[in-house]
Amino acid sequence: MVVGTVGFDDIETPESRVVEVLGGSATYATLASRLFACSSLSSVVGTDFPEAHRELLHQRDIDLSGLDVVAGNTFRWGGRYESNMNIRETTFVDLNVLSDFNPTLTDDARTNSFVFLGNTDPAIQLHVLDQVRNPRFVLADSMDLWIQRSKTQLEDVIARCSCVVLNDEEVRLFGDDPHLPRASRKILGLGPDAIIIKRGEYGAALLNNAGWFFVPGYPLENVVDPTGAGDSFAGAFLGSVAEAGTITNTVLRRAVVFGSIVASFTVEAFGVDRLMSLTRDEIDARYAEFRQFVAY
Amino acid sequence: MVVGTVGFDDIETPESRVVEVLGGSATYATLASRLFACSSLSSVVGTDFPEAHRELLHQRDIDLSGLDVVAGNTFRWGGRYESNMNIRETTFVDLNVLSDFNPTLTDDARTNSFVFLGNTDPAIQLHVLDQVRNPRFVLADSMDLWIQRSKTQLEDVIARCSCVVLNDEEVRLFGDDPHLPRASRKILGLGPDAIIIKRGEYGAALLNNAGWFFVPGYPLENVVDPTGAGDSFAGAFLGSVAEAGTITNTVLRRAVVFGSIVASFTVEAFGVDRLMSLTRDEIDARYAEFRQFVAY
Repeated sequence: MVVGTVGFDDIETPESRVVEVLGGSATYATLASRLFACSSLSSVVGTDFPEAHRELLHQRDIDLSGLDVVAGNTFRWGGRYESNMNIRETTFVDLNVLSDFNPTLTDDARTNSFVFLGNTDPAIQLHVLDQVRNPRFVLADSMDLWIQRSKTQLEDVIARCSCVVLNDEEVRLFGDDPHLPRASRKILGLGPDAIIIKRGEYGAALLNNAGWFFVPGYPLENVVDPTGAGDSFAGAFLGSVAEAGTITNTVLRRAVVFGSIVASFTVEAFGVDRLMSLTRDEIDARYAEFRQFVAY
Repeated sequence: MVVGTVGFDDIETPESRVVEVLGGSATYATLASRLFACSSLSSVVGTDFPEAHRELLHQRDIDLSGLDVVAGNTFRWGGRYESNMNIRETTFVDLNVLSDFNPTLTDDARTNSFVFLGNTDPAIQLHVLDQVRNPRFVLADSMDLWIQRSKTQLEDVIARCSCVVLNDEEVRLFGDDPHLPRASRKILGLGPDAIIIKRGEYGAALLNNAGWFFVPGYPLENVVDPTGAGDSFAGAFLGSVAEAGTITNTVLRRAVVFGSIVASFTVEAFGVDRLMSLTRDEIDARYAEFRQFVAY
């Protein structure tokens, strides 16, 4: 189960621009996790959300029973990438119906074993955690806004989840230390079993009691649109853990590789376009490439 | 054989400061390469260069017959690191005797099979290449100054060497492309067999006709002084290739790992202090750790 946003994105890159495409953290994460395990989505949209979008997700076996529709407009976000695509500027945010989002899970949803808490107000993440019964693995995302504004509540979220996923700048900010390994250990000290550090083109790192694990970024010749890379990483990671069924160090490490692979596909096209058509065979072929990247 | 600088460094970090310590690219590189293969140094110092420094290098089996002493002062460099140690400011450069450096190799030196051309004016690197007879492997370093000022000559150096080593910003600058994989392929297109991209705390990458290879940065809990990391990487890399004796893809990949390992030790203390005491057993222990960093 993925709890996060569903909305419309305006995306501008140096090469091109798209308007009002399907986006949101829960959209990217479930489109990634469905490639590994049964996936459901908990979010809210307005009455303007097109039936065609629901149908696209439904056709990819995503359970939409947790997607509430309320009066008002759907969440909208705009972003612009510089020629160095690692640099993004948010051009606008219209929360719309998302401003009152505080999900009440159905009895069925409360029994989910594998949960991804997408980046949102830690108060909402805690509210979801309070409802889920004995989850086996909870992954939580966050961002600079909540680290600065709601650090105490975010610490509670991190203490109660199995694994936290942040990018390197967020880790440095949260740990209040420019040195990544020290900052990462501080966060791990709050109680989760593992921390994943997303490093953009440099890949990702996992730190748990078995030590450090590193996966390189896929050396794409052409990045079209980085939007959703982090959320599809998280979705594929959690889906892969759920598919394995047991939570071992090897399972977590492989899940980080699968997360990196799916994220590398996501950025090859605008929005969710590449994720929509992605197959398990394509993932497995790139998995073999990743093995070669570190073979010696 | 390492052709590069020998000098005095003033180094300032947020934590501490040292003045007039032994430094220079050839110093770091030979102190690293001597852990793998017989190493010699080609450079120039002034009459102020202390006998004690010569003795320290000589005791570590570095052949100093190519270290010329000429009238004048030794090369001096000063650098200051910000709290994010990835950011360095050069505070001063006194070339002194280095301003007339244009080495004439002895007959013996001309027969060296494995050569590292440290970062210097490409005209000097070409002058060395003209003298070396049938080298088996030539590694060349450079920097933004030469990419901007002497690009054509630097292209000649790259075309004539086996492998070029640059950091990611230098690759982007040389390839005139913010996208690293594309910029790297441009440089490989000039003719070398391989390119190594140093990525600081993110490790290093190797690209050759066998594809991409990635090694993570060692997750040090405390970085004392990043000075010399790149040169000790290059020295250990070349020493490891020379030790293997054959130039295969596996040999090159392992050499990148050894380069990363020795660089990770270098930054654990000021200047060359850690390199001076480093042993092969310590390197081998960290080699085993690097294996675990990518095991899944």
